[in-house]
Parts: sequence; C-alpha cells; structure tokens
Amino acid sequence: MRVPAYAAAAAGAPLAPFTVERRDPRPDDVQLDILFCGICHSDIHQARDDWAAGLFPMVPGHEIVGRVTGVGPKVTRFKVGDLAGVGCIVDSCGRCDPCRRGTEQFCTQGAAWTYNSTEMDRTTPTYGGYSTAIVVRESFALRIPAGLDPAGTAPLLCAGVTTYSPLRQWGVSAGQKVGVVGLGGLGHVGVKLARSLGAEVTLFSTSPSKQKDSERLGATGFVLTRAPEALKAQKGKFDFLLDTVSAPHDIEAYLSMLRPGGTMVLVGMPPEQLQLRASALVSGNRRLAGSLIGGIAETQEMLDHCGKHRIVADVEIIPIEKVNEAYDRTVKSDVRYRFSIDLASLKK
Amino acid sequence: MRVPAYAAAAAGAPLAPFTVERRDPRPDDVQLDILFCGICHSDIHQARDDWAAGLFPMVPGHEIVGRVTGVGPKVTRFKVGDLAGVGCIVDSCGRCDPCRRGTEQFCTQGAAWTYNSTEMDRTTPTYGGYSTAIVVRESFALRIPAGLDPAGTAPLLCAGVTTYSPLRQWGVSAGQKVGVVGLGGLGHVGVKLARSLGAEVTLFSTSPSKQKDSERLGATGFVLTRAPEALKAQKGKFDFLLDTVSAPHDIEAYLSMLRPGGTMVLVGMPPEQLQLRASALVSGNRRLAGSLIGGIAETQEMLDHCGKHRIVADVEIIPIEKVNEAYDRTVKSDVRYRFSIDLASLKK
Repeated sequence: MRVPAYAAAAAGAPLAPFTVERRDPRPDDVQLDILFCGICHSDIHQARDDWAAGLFPMVPGHEIVGRVTGVGPKVTRFKVGDLAGVGCIVDSCGRCDPCRRGTEQFCTQGAAWTYNSTEMDRTTPTYGGYSTAIVVRESFALRIPAGLDPAGTAPLLCAGVTTYSPLRQWGVSAGQKVGVVGLGGLGHVGVKLARSLGAEVTLFSTSPSKQKDSERLGATGFVLTRAPEALKAQKGKFDFLLDTVSAPHDIEAYLSMLRPGGTMVLVGMPPEQLQLRASALVSGNRRLAGSLIGGIAETQEMLDHCGKHRIVADVEIIPIEKVNEAYDRTVKSDVRYRFSIDLASLKK
Repeated sequence: MRVPAYAAAAAGAPLAPFTVERRDPRPDDVQLDILFCGICHSDIHQARDDWAAGLFPMVPGHEIVGRVTGVGPKVTRFKVGDLAGVGCIVDSCGRCDPCRRGTEQFCTQGAAWTYNSTEMDRTTPTYGGYSTAIVVRESFALRIPAGLDPAGTAPLLCAGVTTYSPLRQWGVSAGQKVGVVGLGGLGHVGVKLARSLGAEVTLFSTSPSKQKDSERLGATGFVLTRAPEALKAQKGKFDFLLDTVSAPHDIEAYLSMLRPGGTMVLVGMPPEQLQLRASALVSGNRRLAGSLIGGIAETQEMLDHCGKHRIVADVEIIPIEKVNEAYDRTVKSDVRYRFSIDLASLKK
C-alpha cells in the first residue's frame, strides 16, 4: 500500500510531500493509521545529516501514536480500533545477549530503527511517522493506556522512555533528591517522571524564564546555572542528576553536586569531549553514566506508568505543512516543549 | 607513651628515625604492637608532598597489622594477644549521612585519617604505621582472620578494600567477564579478589612481563595494551573493568570494551583531565565510576572474605631501614607487588 508522507529528499533538504510503500501486514504485523507523531530533536539532526550517513529520501518520526486498522492472524495483543504506539525501534534480531536482556536498542546485529535504517533484511528502507500509516511487528508495537491524550502521548515513545529508563535503571525512588539539567523536550518529561516516582526535583537551567514552568511540572527547586557560584552552593546535595543538555557544560561542576555514591546520567550527547578529573569520580564514589532510549518492555512499562500517573508531554500541535517551521523553532528551543504533528493534516 | 617511628621531617625529606607520642588507651581504645605495615603508593605521594597540604613531620603507613597489647574497659571485640588491623581511617563523626551509610571515608566533617591528618579534635596529629605501636578506637580496628600471613595481610587494609569495594558495589559475580587494568599493588589484589568472586579475569598491561604473573594470580586472559589494535579486538566483551592505573590512558578505548550496561571503575587517580565523548557512555548505557578505599564494615567484610579464600597480597618484606630505597623502587614499579615493612626492625 502506498501512503502519503513528508520526506527530506536529500541531506538538509526541507521536508516535502512524498509517498512511501508500506508492506501488507504479515501474520505477526499490526497496521496503524497514524494520529500523531512527535518531533524529536534527533529527527532534525538526521534530516539535516548532522550525524552523516543518512539514508535519503528520509521520512523522520519515531514518536508515533495511531489507531490499529489491521492485524495479522498471529497477533494477540491488538485488535482493530485499539490505540497503539511505535517508538524508535521496529525490529531486532531477538537472539543476541542485549535483545535477550530487553535492550533491543543495543542488538549486536544492529536494530531496525524506525527510520533512516533498514529492516532486518538489511535491504528494505524504513520510513518513520511523518506519514499516514505504518506497519510494524506486533512485538515492537506498544499498548497505549486508556485516557491519555494521543497528541501528548506520542512524544513519550522517545522522550518518555529516554528519561524514564535512567530513572529506573538507577532506582530513583521516593524521598530522593533529583536534579534535572535542562528544561526542553526531554527535561520537561524528566521532571514529571521523577516527581511521579516520589523524588524531590530541582531543575537546573540557564534560563530564568523556565522557573515558573518547572514548578508547574513538579519541580520544587530551581537553580539558575548562569550564576557562577550557583552549582557550588548545591555541593553534595543530590542523589541523582539527569542531564538532558547537548550543549557543552562543566560536567565536573555537576558531579560535585552529587552526594557520595550519587549518579549522574547523560541522555544528551554534547559532541565535544567531556573533561573531568578522575578525582571528581573517585572522591565520593561518584558515577557518570549514559543512557540511550530504552528497550521495548521498558517502553511499555513507562507508558503504563504514565497512564497510572496521567503523564503526557506538553505539546504544541501542528499540521504537517508546518514541519519545516517547527524544525527551525525546535533548534531555537522555541517550543514548550514538544511539537506533535496531527497527521489528519496529511489525510485531507 | 613515646614509641619509635620513621618520619619525613619535611616535604620530600627522606624518612628517618623519629619518636611519636601514643595516647594511653581510653575506655574504647585498642593498643597494638605493630608487626607489619605495607607501603602504599599514596604514602610516597604524601611524604613527598605531591598533593600539597602535607602535615610534617609525617609518619606514613595505613596498612597496619599488629598484636593487641592493651584494651580499654569498654572494648568487647578484642583481647590482648589478638591480631588486629588498622587501615586508612582511625575515626569519623559517626553521625553524618555517609558515616551512617558505612562510608566513613566520606564523613562530612572529614574523617580522621590514619596519618597526615588530625584526630576528630582537629588538633592532635595522627601518625601512621611506620612505628612500633598505635592506639585506635575499637570501632576502627579490624579483626584479622586466623591463618592469614600477617605480612601479606597488611596491604589488604588499603589495597585490598580499594579493589574489593568496587567489585562489591557493582555486584561482580560468578561467570562475569572482568578486566583488571594494570598489575601493581592494587591490580594484583584485584585479580585475586575478582577471581575469588567467580569472575573470569583478563589482565590489561603495558608490560609483556606481567603475563605469567597474571596467570599465576588467577587471570585467564591477558591483553598487551601497547599493541594499537589490542583494545579494539575486545570490544563489547566485558561486564566490568577495574582500572588501577594512575598514568594517562585512553578511557574511551577502555569503555568501548564494555558490553551494554557495563561498568568501568577508576581506583587510580591520573592527575590529567580524562577525555571522553558523551557518546562513549550513552551508546551502550555504559557507566564510569570512581571508588575510594571503603568503609570500616566493608573492610572487615573484605578481610573475612580473604580469610575464607586464603587471599593475601604478594609482598617483599623489608626492614624499616630500607624504606627510602623501597619508595624509589615503588615509584619505578620495581616490586612484586607490595613492600611490607617488618616492624621488628624498629624494635631492636
């Protein structure tokens, strides 16, 4: 079946109407009519080929919520009419150690990413959610809890699990002091999730304008990081820091805010080298870790958690025609806090 | 009581005979006749004032095994004639969060270190184990398991717990693949301890001459790190890396040898800035941590573990007169693998 989409025809080209082929559902496939797709900053990096090796034409989008319109005969967890989600991964080998541990994103054969990738046949290109429909293996489709707004749920498929996974990996729990660094697409979901786990949340931002929002989202502390002594005053106070910032920043200054044994997790990827002395880790048994999205089971756990706690992303809904403008605004951090494309605009 | 010791009279001065005052045992004190004291590389750094802020005259030594010669009336765990150990810490506040968590080394008031420090009165200087006797609070004295050689046990009080603590913090267990980086005072105990926990141990060294020893100590793998492609061939293979090296080395290359979710712990402290890209951590949920010695309860756990597994350090026993020569040889890594001073040489 051929369906309308928006694609970048070549590296850096503006997104424009395009048509993609979606396979007929196989016995274990689910077919979705896409309702909303979030705009992740990595969509922009890939469409603009900032990371090189992009496959064009490229249909971005890995924060997908849709309505099931067809299921193969072996599908058991979805029926026509259900809401379903698709995140960053549409397939993996299923047999390697990382897959067996539920971390399909680290599949040793290389996962089939939702776009800018190939299916596991290593031939068929994958196309993402800036499109009206998608067909995906049931085991890579997520159930969407009842009662969550679909437009705000879409960004959870990437931003949600990216922030939920480190909070869970490191056992963030009630009463802990958690700092979230940066209030953007990732950070604003991070604040909500950390709060929902019972943590006491402080937001670190370069922008005083973020204080009010951070409090509305659940943070009880706010540190303006532009003030030179601001971080020093927080020395040793935090159990856990979730760092969502991709711009260069002083990692050692952040580490010093951890109590002994505390952990800082990077989910952003500043391209510059991090600089820190070993003593920043050794003197205090401190831990610096990275975290990349999350596996399928963990994504489902996150969605179920969000359903229970009524958590969705704060979104600005746009029609697909505004996607290029939205890209420019995202780069300028001019969105609170995620764009969600209403794919009804592509079905007219 | 005044007892003979060896001290550096000033920063960088050679160690020479000196006399220190030891307090009369208080109700909760244990008095030891020191049998052996290991030479830790940090003794040299401090005696030579490499880290500045040294307190002189300085009597180094925090790897102490002795025989109990007196106990205060409130002492319950030791009696005259027992073997006992003293490690890096002789007192702490006991009330702060790190003390209550059993990490006295991070006491927020600052622990009383065994030497180059003061008692918690912040006035009385502390003097270490290059001496014939020491008096210490019972709660900072360690029980020495029966059957362990005292000369080889002494280095466990620092080198032992420094390597044991990270293995335990990170749950290293049977069947895991563990790499130990560097075969010196720390690394050789690290190999023995990791093996005793059931791990499959690979030793990373710049020196081909270490291969035979590493195998004798329990390693089944050996990687000569001087070969440029050596680390690349190990990509993704390790659950855990224990990095004991204080010289500059390529942290990112080591991180790449971790499987997804794997952990590298630094126990050495290269003074240079570490350089790594965030992607080295994010792409693989990898973890880089530091670890500083261990608390008192953990030190006792380590000693009990070593008693059960018959683990001691490999030592070259020297009389105190050879301490300056031993310092020079330690700096040149000309010791397999720790000097242990026989304090009988100071009692003549």
